[in-house]
Formats: sequence, structure tokens, C-alpha cells
Amino acid sequence: MTDSQDGSGDEPVTAAILVIGDEILSGRTKDKNIGYIAEYLTNIGIDLREARIVPDVIGEIADAVNALRQRYTYVFTTGGIGPTHDDITADAVAKAFGVGIDYHPEAVQILGDHYKETGGEFTKARMRMARMPEGATMIANPLSKAPGFQIGNVFVMAGVPMVMQVMLDSLTDRLEGGAAMQSRTVTGQIGEGTIAEKLGDLQARHPEVGIGSYPYYRGKVFGTSIVVRATDSTELDAVADEVAALMREFGVEPAMGDPA
Amino acid sequence: MTDSQDGSGDEPVTAAILVIGDEILSGRTKDKNIGYIAEYLTNIGIDLREARIVPDVIGEIADAVNALRQRYTYVFTTGGIGPTHDDITADAVAKAFGVGIDYHPEAVQILGDHYKETGGEFTKARMRMARMPEGATMIANPLSKAPGFQIGNVFVMAGVPMVMQVMLDSLTDRLEGGAAMQSRTVTGQIGEGTIAEKLGDLQARHPEVGIGSYPYYRGKVFGTSIVVRATDSTELDAVADEVAALMREFGVEPAMGDPA
Repeated sequence: MTDSQDGSGDEPVTAAILVIGDEILSGRTKDKNIGYIAEYLTNIGIDLREARIVPDVIGEIADAVNALRQRYTYVFTTGGIGPTHDDITADAVAKAFGVGIDYHPEAVQILGDHYKETGGEFTKARMRMARMPEGATMIANPLSKAPGFQIGNVFVMAGVPMVMQVMLDSLTDRLEGGAAMQSRTVTGQIGEGTIAEKLGDLQARHPEVGIGSYPYYRGKVFGTSIVVRATDSTELDAVADEVAALMREFGVEPAMGDPA
Repeated sequence: MTDSQDGSGDEPVTAAILVIGDEILSGRTKDKNIGYIAEYLTNIGIDLREARIVPDVIGEIADAVNALRQRYTYVFTTGGIGPTHDDITADAVAKAFGVGIDYHPEAVQILGDHYKETGGEFTKARMRMARMPEGATMIANPLSKAPGFQIGNVFVMAGVPMVMQVMLDSLTDRLEGGAAMQSRTVTGQIGEGTIAEKLGDLQARHPEVGIGSYPYYRGKVFGTSIVVRATDSTELDAVADEVAALMREFGVEPAMGDPA
């Protein structure tokens, strides 16, 4: 990281994701939320630094929330906020913050109206979905109504991807983004090992730019994509051009973007 | 967890996954390894308890390796073992174990033969892929040759899914599985909130059985899949039958398996 050069408050804005659920760890359900949130945050200039997946165990969830919220600007959790016995995220987050938990009046109202409208019974189990830690504020859920919540720097969202996505949309005006990270990808049919040494030199000369090397195999075709990431677009372009020149040195004509 | 009842050494065999790579955290690459390894471990009776994704930073990787290896029977890492400057997993694992790192003679041999055969140049960068922490043993890579390695209870594998998968196949005879976890899924077009209370009672009566509740939405069709997991198939069947009976109580005919 470079020091701030323009005085606009360049402190990196960081985040972690905490995915909660036995079904992910058993392999029964494949997580789709990490990749989605990761891309989303990158686009608004927030640097995702860590993700964890933990089981439906209160102590495990609370420990992970506490480890992550102290370390990163924001923590986003997914899963465990439904009406059943295994939905314990709200309790775990209350425990992590050392606060009580109670029914949130506005959430009770929203759910009550919803079940009145749809003719479903507003059972005691469904009312569980209105429970939030003391001091939490709601995150709206235009899709299936049961809200998420925010407490401190922790945002608690649903696990069902469609629902998580509308919640993420409805909370982003609460987030402060950093300088947006931009990237350019240079791809060529060349082994990583061929350009690795010179690429290392290039990285050493540009410590504030991220240079990642990603080999690919497509049947009998193989090659490498070099991804250059930076907040400064001038330096970004200069380094990407150097990567392209490096491939040409080895007789390979690079393409911009990922392999077709 | 229940105590062992049959004296066959029922200590639960646990595992964690550590995914290493900036490209996953930026959202550029979507991780496919966690879901694959999770299913694989479940099938051989190993209980995956946690997964983490960390960036290409030696200290972060080493800290995560140490946190996880002390806590779980096995740790599986993916990513960061190629030839470029951002491939630092071997160094980070050596640091975590407090040991040196050096070229593994057999790995050097395998890679040298491979490049001789394919006509590629065995560059200094490619030789990096033969570096392993002191005391490590190789994990064979029949696909692209560059091996992974095992040190203590930590298994270090490639990030490219195809390569990771052949490595996993070649190391599993080193793993001791537990009693295989079996599961049955009961699905019905019923809201989770409707059966949540009785499901909670059922869970309380069978503490050794895992009962998970997973709502789904398919356009205008919604419903819930209840997944029952246990090592004892008699109890598994009994509880799954009770779940089915519970749905029928509310006038819903359940289907076995996931929603079509």
C-alpha cells in the first residue's frame, strides 16, 4: 500500500465474509454468495481480505464474528436467519457483541403484514425471524420480507442467494467505498514458468500494483492470464503494457482479457 | 456428539480447508474447490468443520495454517504452489511449522524429466515448484507433474480444480475416515415456518442426528427440504420418516430427495 497522495482519505476499506451453514460444509449446497459478494465489493472499491465458512454452532459463529469485526472495516454474514431451530445467527451475533436479543417492532410489523396479505399463519417460529440483537438496525428484504440486520460494522444477510442479493443492494448506501480497484488482464499461450522470473522483477519494481499469474488448461491448449490490479489507472496501463511486451519477447502475441 | 457406543474408535475425524489466493477474494475466479472437497470428505466419513479463504500474504497464510492445524484432524490447502512470485504457499507453510525450505530431490527429478520430455525449458522459476518445507512428503500430480506435499496433518494442493482433484485422489490412502455420515432428504411444498416448531422438538429428541432445514424458491413454487444426517442408519431412517409424517400432518405429501 502506498501512502495517501491526494489527501482524500485513502485508508483501505476492507471486508470479510462469514458464511454460516452446515449444508455448505457437508458439500450438499455449493456456496454462491462468496463469489458474488467478492465481485460486488471489488466494484465499489472495498477490498475483501478474508472469507470463512463455519457450522451452525453458536460459539463458532460468535468467535468468527469477533475475530473478523475487529480486523476489517466491514463483515458480511450469510445464512442462518430463517425460522427453524438451526437458524441461530442472530443469537450468535448478539453473543459476539455481548448484548441482549429481542423482537424488533418494525420487523414484527412487516412480517405480520406479509403473512396477513399472503394468508400464511404468523407462527411463533416465523416470529423468530423478527428477533435482532439490541441496537441493530434492519436491512430491508423486498423479496421475501424477513429482514436482515446491521449491528456495528457487521451486516447479517440471508443465505438464499436471491434474497442475499436484494439485501446487499438495499444496504450499500451505508458503505463507504475506497478508491476503486481497477484491473487489466493480459493472456497468452505461454507457460507461467517461462515468464515467471521477469514477472517477479516487474512486481518488485511496482510494489503498489498487484500482479497475479493464473495458468489455464483448455484441453490441449494451455496458457497464462496475468491480472494487473491497481487504483492508479496510469500505472495500471503502464504495467499491463510491460506484461504484454514481456510475452512478445518470448514470441507470444498477447490478447487483452481472459482466454476465449 | 454422542460417546462412542461400539468401541470402534468413534473419535470424530475433522478437517478444515484453506483456500489461498487474491483471485478468489477479488471475485475474478469463483472457487470450485471447497464444494468439491466438502463432498469428497463427507463421502469418506470426514467431518469438514471450517473453511477459510486468505490472500497471497505469507503471514496471513501461516497464521491460518497454524490456527487450523491445531484444531482439526486434517487441513487441506489449495492454491499458491505454481512457479510465479505470487506462489508463496510452500514458504508460508514452512514458516507455520518453523522449519526450513529446500528443493525436494524427487520433485526436482520429476519436473526435470517432465520438461525434458515435453521440450520445455526447466527454468529457475519452474524449479521453485520443487521447493518443500523440511520433512514434507510429496503428493503425486499425475496430470501436470508439479507435486503437492504433506507436512504433519497439512496437505498442500494446487488451486486449478482439475489438478487439485487428481492430487486429492492420490493422497486419500493417507487419510483415516470416520464412520461415514449418511443423509436423507425430505422435500415438500411447505413453508419452513409452518413446521419449524415441531421440527425443533424432533431435533431436541434426537441430539445425535443433524436436522437441517433449507427453503427453496423456484419461480412461484416454494417449499422446504429437510436434510437428516447421521452415522446410524436405523436412527436416520426413523427420523426421516418422522419428518415425512410431520409434513403429512399439514396436508403436504413429501418427496424423498431434493426438489425437482
